[in-house]
This record gives sequence, structure tokens and C-alpha cells, in this order.
Amino acid sequence: MSSAPTPVTVIPGDGIGPEVVNAALRIIEAAGVPFAAELHEAGAKAFQRGIESGVPQDTIDSIERTRVVLKGPLETPIGYGNKSANVTLRKLFETFANVRPVRELPGVETPYQGRHLDIVIVRENVEDLYAGIEHMQTPAVAQSLKVITRPGCEKITRFAFEYAVAEGRHTIHCATKSNIMKLSEGMVQHTFEDIAPEYPQITAKHILVDNCAHQLAMRPEQFDVILTTNMNGDILSDLTSGLTGGLGFAPSANIGSDVAMFEAVHGSAPDIAGKNLANPTALILSAAMLLRHIGEGKAASEIEQAVLVTLEEGVRTGDMKGDRPPATTTAFTDAIIANLGKRSRMAAPREYKRINVPAASNEVGHVAVATRSVVGADIFVESLEHPNEMGDTLTRAVEGTPLELKVISNRGTAVWPDTGHRTSLVDAFQCRFVARDAAREVGDAELLDLLQRVGAKYRWVHVEKLQRFDGKDGFSKAQGER
Amino acid sequence: MSSAPTPVTVIPGDGIGPEVVNAALRIIEAAGVPFAAELHEAGAKAFQRGIESGVPQDTIDSIERTRVVLKGPLETPIGYGNKSANVTLRKLFETFANVRPVRELPGVETPYQGRHLDIVIVRENVEDLYAGIEHMQTPAVAQSLKVITRPGCEKITRFAFEYAVAEGRHTIHCATKSNIMKLSEGMVQHTFEDIAPEYPQITAKHILVDNCAHQLAMRPEQFDVILTTNMNGDILSDLTSGLTGGLGFAPSANIGSDVAMFEAVHGSAPDIAGKNLANPTALILSAAMLLRHIGEGKAASEIEQAVLVTLEEGVRTGDMKGDRPPATTTAFTDAIIANLGKRSRMAAPREYKRINVPAASNEVGHVAVATRSVVGADIFVESLEHPNEMGDTLTRAVEGTPLELKVISNRGTAVWPDTGHRTSLVDAFQCRFVARDAAREVGDAELLDLLQRVGAKYRWVHVEKLQRFDGKDGFSKAQGER
Repeated sequence: MSSAPTPVTVIPGDGIGPEVVNAALRIIEAAGVPFAAELHEAGAKAFQRGIESGVPQDTIDSIERTRVVLKGPLETPIGYGNKSANVTLRKLFETFANVRPVRELPGVETPYQGRHLDIVIVRENVEDLYAGIEHMQTPAVAQSLKVITRPGCEKITRFAFEYAVAEGRHTIHCATKSNIMKLSEGMVQHTFEDIAPEYPQITAKHILVDNCAHQLAMRPEQFDVILTTNMNGDILSDLTSGLTGGLGFAPSANIGSDVAMFEAVHGSAPDIAGKNLANPTALILSAAMLLRHIGEGKAASEIEQAVLVTLEEGVRTGDMKGDRPPATTTAFTDAIIANLGKRSRMAAPREYKRINVPAASNEVGHVAVATRSVVGADIFVESLEHPNEMGDTLTRAVEGTPLELKVISNRGTAVWPDTGHRTSLVDAFQCRFVARDAAREVGDAELLDLLQRVGAKYRWVHVEKLQRFDGKDGFSKAQGER
Repeated sequence: MSSAPTPVTVIPGDGIGPEVVNAALRIIEAAGVPFAAELHEAGAKAFQRGIESGVPQDTIDSIERTRVVLKGPLETPIGYGNKSANVTLRKLFETFANVRPVRELPGVETPYQGRHLDIVIVRENVEDLYAGIEHMQTPAVAQSLKVITRPGCEKITRFAFEYAVAEGRHTIHCATKSNIMKLSEGMVQHTFEDIAPEYPQITAKHILVDNCAHQLAMRPEQFDVILTTNMNGDILSDLTSGLTGGLGFAPSANIGSDVAMFEAVHGSAPDIAGKNLANPTALILSAAMLLRHIGEGKAASEIEQAVLVTLEEGVRTGDMKGDRPPATTTAFTDAIIANLGKRSRMAAPREYKRINVPAASNEVGHVAVATRSVVGADIFVESLEHPNEMGDTLTRAVEGTPLELKVISNRGTAVWPDTGHRTSLVDAFQCRFVARDAAREVGDAELLDLLQRVGAKYRWVHVEKLQRFDGKDGFSKAQGER
């Protein structure tokens, strides 16, 4: 055991937050961990005090010092705040890895009982559609950018492998939709396949995300660690929580290079707040993850074992089925404390090492390429014309210039030159212009001239350069484009 | 019963396709349906004959005539074809609705047995990330466009309600991620809420897609029809197939305004092809959906009932557990034929009406607005500089012009002016320029001048106009943007 208590920022939060956080703190104390909780506010009260982000500066200052957070659920009261305080905290400290372990627990009835599920979802937590970059191309057409980066993929992939190594796990499935999104989801798969050989002790498999959901319903026991993108991970992690009994038992960690936050997945449950009825299991298991993170692995395993023993005894809160009368939050916590030091019949403590979290870089992440060129541009225009008319007009508009109109597509399907598709059209058309002389690099001046010519005929709303890197197209073809 | 046989294009397809399609055709014949199958090719053999799309012209011509397709699984042999023949067929005939019904079947062991699952996923089949519009912003940053349109949302929403009405169903859950993607996924939710009052007999509920996955694992019996976007529907429909026994029992329909295609969800299973081992249930149930579509509802219900009775008798193919020795595809089909006319103990036939599929429009879909304006532009640039340096450079670059630099963000988080975020940077920066005088409309000439000034300092890769429609911003704010 260490000497000086470890300072940890503790945010009791809203609703049942203070009760479940208090349960965790009592158990940590009873386990003899030298732990210095710095209690701070975030969420509903902070919003109501006029703090726009829901996170007061002294809370931020505390986290900057301690770098470890135990957090109850936070509310964003209606009428306050553009973004939730949870999102603000995750973004502020760039906790790029969301870790969601689930396991079969004794006494928690599920359809998969007896199959010994023990699955961790490692979800990328910064990129993807969650970057929240949206534009209306036209009043009828909304567009969100799904952004995936090689540095982001490398960081989460390394984290997933390091996590698997630290927990002595054997297999990682990387779940993507690379067959449809070859550039973005494909980058996730390729990065995974590039890095996997560095960890020969871990079996690395790729799986399509739809099949992953199917297999999670059919044979979830085949999974160990699942690595996936932000949006897919949102769905898969809530699915795996469902397979193992629900959010009352779902711990989580949001881990960054500098700061790690541990919290239950469930909400603030205002209907039972303050009534001593809440199930503190998820937050207690989150606290055990925190203890492991700060090097108190022995205490972490002791607490996890005590939770299992307590559930094996049939002690339960009101949200669980069982023969015994439901226990209050306090009584449930007392039972866990009384079971510290006992061993579960169901699962032996796992040997954990500390996770080697990839460090943050001060450099701007990038990928070096040997050759690159610009070969054209996609100009998205708003129009109510039919494609043949547009094709004629735009072809004439660029006559005599180095660029020609190659294809017009609508919702990703080529509609000019005529392809015979029965395509319902919307008023946003993607017009692809390429160099007439394929060997010729396209310059900015030519693209500005192009944009002026197109803009003289149609309202343009969005432009993408068409680039090639190391001899490969950095853009997809439309369905039906040749 | 009608007089002239209904012509239907039948594509036996690859692997086990011919066997399962033949099973369905035998049953349709035995049920006495006047059915004129036009057998046509698509998939592996077509690719190998040099047809780039995998779909020969005479197949297309037949579908143009019959407008109804029964289809086995199609393969894209390695080295052939950019897109699968399945995708080509769906795009060619714009089958905008993917319908995936699942139900508990007798003798099919699942963890949810006895909970009488009977769920239909209605998945939008044209838009969303599946439009496949991708660009590399830089060698390190991939971007896919998630495109959602109001006309597309209206069509699939109306279809879902009409489907629920036709099947006498009671509830539709619309599953979106509108809390994160307020413009795109928000449009799905808002369209659903706008149209729902036209169908007062159907209970309409919105649910977040992550919670939907959670609830499908916890209490799937609460769901009836689930309406969702293309990507989410891909995951949720494979999940619901998993809850009810797997793809061997999962029928599907791809329905457009003009053409409807009915097919099993499973693949071509080349390992058991030609061995009389395949389970034809999914294709037979797909064929029943087809019969309902062509007005042969009585035969459709009779076939469904015969399938249920056969399973209740314990007849099974080799992929199913059971006490009796496994039946061949032929014997399984014979058993169903022998059971035509019998009633299942488990589920009474449902009363179906024909689905009133929304018609295609020749007009270009759009939304009328009373007022609109352009208030600035986002220019995405590639750079290895740090944001403070870029902020200074770009501020100076536009001095004396009507536009000013408002914010620079990286992966959706504001990084200039300094926000205190611990943000790892990648080499694609989103630079937002707005009019200094907010009351002033920004013109194309000003934007071209802006692009020239920015391009003189940095390599630009992507431009978005910032538009306002009817007084509302048609763009999102970056995390931390004021």
C-alpha cells in the first residue's frame, strides 16, 4: 500500500448521484485505500448558477491537478446549456477511449445466464459523427460529416491492445462498416490490421458491425474485447449492457492521455433520488476500475469480489428480481463492506496490470505521402432542374477550360450521363469536374474560375477538392460512375 | 383467385440460391398460386461472363416488365465488380424501403423463447452514409458524408405507417441519434413527428438508437415496428434477426415505388451448396411476403402457417437443433407442402391488407423557404501549424474584407480562439468565416475572394457555405464555439 493518499476529483452529480457516489466512497474507505476525495460540482446546479458549460472552473482546476475523476450522473436542466456537462468534460480533457466492460453477475437475471459473458467495448470517443459537424446543403438536405483520422485510429487501436494486454485478455474484434465506407471505416480496419502484429499474444479479428450485432445476439460468449468507432460503439455498448442485465450494472471509464474519468452509464433517475433506493453497483464497479487505474489493483479486485459475493448471497436493490426483500442503497453497501475479503464462487479475481495509455502528442497528427495531386473538384449545387439540362448547361459553362464535367450524382447515385436508374431526385446535386488532360495537375486558380462559372448558373453550396495521394484516389465514385 | 398468372422475375442466384428458390417455387405452385416465373441470371456467373454490374440487361428488362422479383443470394466473385449485384439492383430500381420482419418460430431455440417476439425493422435504403460519398481531406483524414433529405424521410416514414396499417400493427418506434446530429438525424425525428398525426390509429414513439439497441436486448417484446435510417437499420435489423434465431429464418423485402424485390438476408453458403442441406425457411417466408405484395394474401398466410406447423412438428434442417434427424432441403419442403391448409397452434394468421406504397415523384424534391441568406463559409484547410499561428495568419489575410475569422476547430472542437481544451490536433482544420456586419448578406464574389486569400496561405480542401433558412442556422456550432 502506498503512503500519501491519492487525490481524486469526486463529482457527486445529480439525482441519485450523491447516493451512489457515497456508497462507492464508503466502500473505498472500508477497503483501506489511501484516497483523498476532492468534492466538486458539475451539472444541474452549475447550469442553474449561470455556468454555461455546466462545469465550474474550480472543478476543472481540481481535475487538472488530480487527473482522475469519480463522477455521478449529470443533468442538463431544460433551457440550460447547448451541450451537456458530460460532453464538455470529455471534450475538455479529450478522453479518447470509452471503456465499457460487462459481465454476467450472480443474481442478475438475463436471457444469456450461464454463458459467462465477459465483454469489453472499447469505443473511440472523439471522432466520427460525434464531431457534430453539420450543414444544410439546401433547405431539404442535411449533411453530417463522419470524420475518421489515422492518428485517431492509431491511438484507440493501441489503447485497445494495451487494455487487452493489461487485463490478460486474448481476442480483439474490430467492428467496422469498411465494405460500404472504404475510406473512413476502411481506415479503422487498416489501422487495426497494421498495428495488430505488434501484439502477437492477442488474436486480432475484423468483423462487419452489422454481423457483430447479430453475433452479439446469437453467440455473445465468442467476444472478449470489441474495438469500434464512436457511433457504432454507442449502439454496441448499450446492446452489451442490455445482454448482461442493464445499465444498473454497467460501469464505464473515459480515458485520455492525461485524465481518466470513471462513471456509471445510467442517468440520474430523479424519480427515486434521495430515497435510499438506488442500485449503486454500476458506480461501485466504476470505482474499482478507478482504483486499478491509480495502482490500487488489490483493493479493486477485493471490492469486485465483495460485490459478486453480495449478489451471490441474494442481497439486492429494488430494481433486481429476487426472493429476499429489497435492500436500501445503504444496506446494500453495508453488505458489500461486510463481504470485503471474501472470494466469489463464480469468478476468480483477474490479474490486471496498469494500462499503458498512449501519450498525447504536441505535434499536429498527419501522414506523410510521397506524391500528391489535385485532379478535379466536386461542386454541390442546389437546383430544381433535371440532370440532362444541368449536364448540358455545365458542360457548356466550362467549354474551353482545362476542366470538364464528368458525372452528376444525386444522393450518391450517378444521374448524368443517363444511367437508367429510377432515381428520385432531391435538390442537391454533386457535380464532378476533372481535368480534360488526366496528366495535368489542377491548380487553385482553375478551381476558382470553375467555381465562378458554375456559380453563374447554379447556387453552389459545398466544394470538395479531388485529391490523389501516392497514386490512389482520395475520393469515392458515385454508384454507376465509370 | 385471379385468372392470368402473375409474371414474377425469379433470380435463383449463387451457392444455395437455386435450392432455396426452388423450394419456394414448389410451395407456391402447391399452394395453387397462378404464378409465371421468369427465370433470370444475376451475380457470380454474370460477372464472370464480363457483365460489369453483375446484372445482365435481360434481367433488368424482365424486372422492368414484372416489377416483382424473387431473388436468391448473389455473390460478387473476388476480382470482379466495384459494387455488388445486390446493391446495383437496389439502386437501379430505387427500393427505398428495406423491410425486415422477425418473429419467434416454433422449434427455433433462442434466449428469448416464449416472449413472442414479432418485430419489423423498416430501414431507409437509399440515403445516409450508404450514399457512399467519401473524400480524403488530407492523407490522414477521411470524411464520409451522411446525407439525409426531407423527401427521403417523408417517403420512408409514410411507408412505415402504411406498412403498419396494412399489417394491423399498433406501434412504431422511430430510432435516431437526434440528440447528437440535430440536423440530419433530427430531420428523421421531426419528419416522423410531423407525419404521425395523419395515422392516429398508430402509436408513434421516438427512441434514441443506442437505447433502442439496449431495449432490444432487455425487453424486445415491447417493439412492433421500428423505423430507422440506413446505417442504424443495418445494425438493428441484424440484431433482431439474431434475437429470433439467425439469418436462416430472416426474410426481407426491398420495396420501391415501382419495383419490389423479395429475398433472404443470408448469403450463398458455398460450403453446403448443391448438397440438399440448405434451410429454405428465410426464402420461403420472403416468397410469402411477395405473394402478399401481388395480392395473393390468402396463399401467403397459408404458406406461413404451413411453415409454422412444420416447425411445430419438429421437422428441421441440419442448422437447427432438435430430436429428429435433420431433413434435406427437399424433405423439409415436402413437409411444408404436406402441411398447406393446416393451422399453427402458436400463431393465428394475421389479417393483411396491401401496402399503399408512396408513389415516385418526377419532381426534384425540395422544401420551400420564405427567407434565406448566406452568412459565411467554413473552409477546411490542411496544415501542420498550431491554431494560434493559423488564427493570426488568417485574421490578417482577411483584414479589410467584409468577412472575419470567427473560429477554428479540429475534429469538431474549437481550438482558436484558445478554449483550454486538451485537443490532439490533426492536419485538417475547419476555419469559420462570417460577415463582420451580421446584417449583411455574403455574396459569391466575396467568398471567391476569401478562398483566394485563404488559399494563398494554406492548402484548402473543402468549402461549405453557411446558410440560414427561415431565420434558423443551417449549420452546427463547434464544441466550445460561442
